[in-house]
Amino acid sequence: MPEPTLSRDELAGLLSGHFAEFLNPASGVTIEEVSHGSARVRQAFAAGMLRPGGTISGPTMMALTDFTMYVALLSAIGWVPLAVTTQLNINFLRRPEPVDLIAEGRLLKLGKRLAVGEVVMRSNGQPEPIAQATSTYSIPPWR
Amino acid sequence: MPEPTLSRDELAGLLSGHFAEFLNPASGVTIEEVSHGSARVRQAFAAGMLRPGGTISGPTMMALTDFTMYVALLSAIGWVPLAVTTQLNINFLRRPEPVDLIAEGRLLKLGKRLAVGEVVMRSNGQPEPIAQATSTYSIPPWR
Amino acid sequence: MPEPTLSRDELAGLLSGHFAEFLNPASGVTIEEVSHGSARVRQAFAAGMLRPGGTISGPTMMALTDFTMYVALLSAIGWVPLAVTTQLNINFLRRPEPVDLIAEGRLLKLGKRLAVGEVVMRSNGQPEPIAQATSTYSIPPWR
Amino acid sequence: MPEPTLSRDELAGLLSGHFAEFLNPASGVTIEEVSHGSARVRQAFAAGMLRPGGTISGPTMMALTDFTMYVALLSAIGWVPLAVTTQLNINFLRRPEPVDLIAEGRLLKLGKRLAVGEVVMRSNGQPEPIAQATSTYSIPPWR
Repeated sequence: MPEPTLSRDELAGLLSGHFAEFLNPASGVTIEEVSHGSARVRQAFAAGMLRPGGTISGPTMMALTDFTMYVALLSAIGWVPLAVTTQLNINFLRRPEPVDLIAEGRLLKLGKRLAVGEVVMRSNGQPEPIAQATSTYSIPPWR
Repeated sequence: MPEPTLSRDELAGLLSGHFAEFLNPASGVTIEEVSHGSARVRQAFAAGMLRPGGTISGPTMMALTDFTMYVALLSAIGWVPLAVTTQLNINFLRRPEPVDLIAEGRLLKLGKRLAVGEVVMRSNGQPEPIAQATSTYSIPPWR
Repeated sequence: MPEPTLSRDELAGLLSGHFAEFLNPASGVTIEEVSHGSARVRQAFAAGMLRPGGTISGPTMMALTDFTMYVALLSAIGWVPLAVTTQLNINFLRRPEPVDLIAEGRLLKLGKRLAVGEVVMRSNGQPEPIAQATSTYSIPPWR
Repeated sequence: MPEPTLSRDELAGLLSGHFAEFLNPASGVTIEEVSHGSARVRQAFAAGMLRPGGTISGPTMMALTDFTMYVALLSAIGWVPLAVTTQLNINFLRRPEPVDLIAEGRLLKLGKRLAVGEVVMRSNGQPEPIAQATSTYSIPPWR
């Protein structure tokens, strides 16, 4: 995988302009690390994410997955905001604790037109994954 | 598929109590129809859903998919709110228009412990699907 | 979806040359119908497909899925044999009977670079699907 | 993950009795390693696996994926041959070389009723994965 084209701070700045509904001071989303086609993103826990049984909602985890993969992709190809997700598959493995979510994404393949990445998600401080996902991106000409 | 155990209005009432963050007057989500293990749900368009390029965000479509499948499942098995999604696969097929989203879900299989459903999503008034998804549910004892 | 570029007989002839290990008199595979980006393919039952419990093996169903989708794709875009599957998701819904398998595939999307299709598989003569799958194809320039 | 309930040789013996069409001297499949809910399986290259363009066929890789996951599962839960795959998602990442395939599988989750595993596949001697897959198993009572 190539060296990151965009640093963590550059990406956070660009994304908070373009994805203001997701990456804003109230959303609780922080890009913690960006490196070599990979990214770690934290979603702070909030009571509104809870579902019956005390579990965190699937859509919260799916939104975090999608965003983490997008950050990992842009860290490698630079600012190509029109890259679009074409497919996403997620396995919900364990019941998340009512704490922050930590998502780690990395590219499995970076082609000229398609990229595929994997995200593994954990409850903060827990070793076992709560979700695992792969997704595919269609990339407009970028090289 | 069995006759619906819960009517549209019964389901909407129960869900708006348990999923207040998703099904509330401000969310723009309406259960339009429930019948025989299937459901049609509308997500009203809102400017906050837009992404660069004028497309509706993937997380908006994934949340609607998850909810629609859940409604289709509960319509068939009754009020078993602890049924959980174990896996979801979604294909993003076409760029959604900036209009309401219409999701139609139906069960492909209803077993004692597992259910599998499919959702097809369209932009309101358009014939071609913008997304197609399948997901699996693990169901606690219910029969 | 466009009118078929290749007829059933033209496709069968081309494929039996290029996929001789799958489409040959001994394989039991027959292309039954090709039309408008869709295809129906039959896999004759053979005792070697059985698994413990009397069920037909998953790989038999996955190979039939992949082939059916490929036929549906080529029926629409013509003879572009280097189109490759980039992703496939299959749900095994019911235990297949020890009889012929019937797979019906159709394109959900046909783009310039990507196509997405769905296959529904049944045991011959049974109404309920035994498997449902979607897959994505990357297509070299063809228009 | 628990210690393996069955050793490599015990598993190979049981499976070659029950899956004679897949695990036999002519099939070129070898269970190389079994350990702690994981398995490494080799598929020897054979000319019959080739597709147009010199690539190894998708069904060959899907069959190897399914078998590797099954071995990883049985290594952890013991001889429960009626465990069945309920869903499988595979990403084809790179064009395989015309050499042996090496599949490494491991369980991501082992529950009472459901197990989820991941397989990463490589061309022998190559560092980059050619395919990545996850699948779900439904397990009859086994504890």
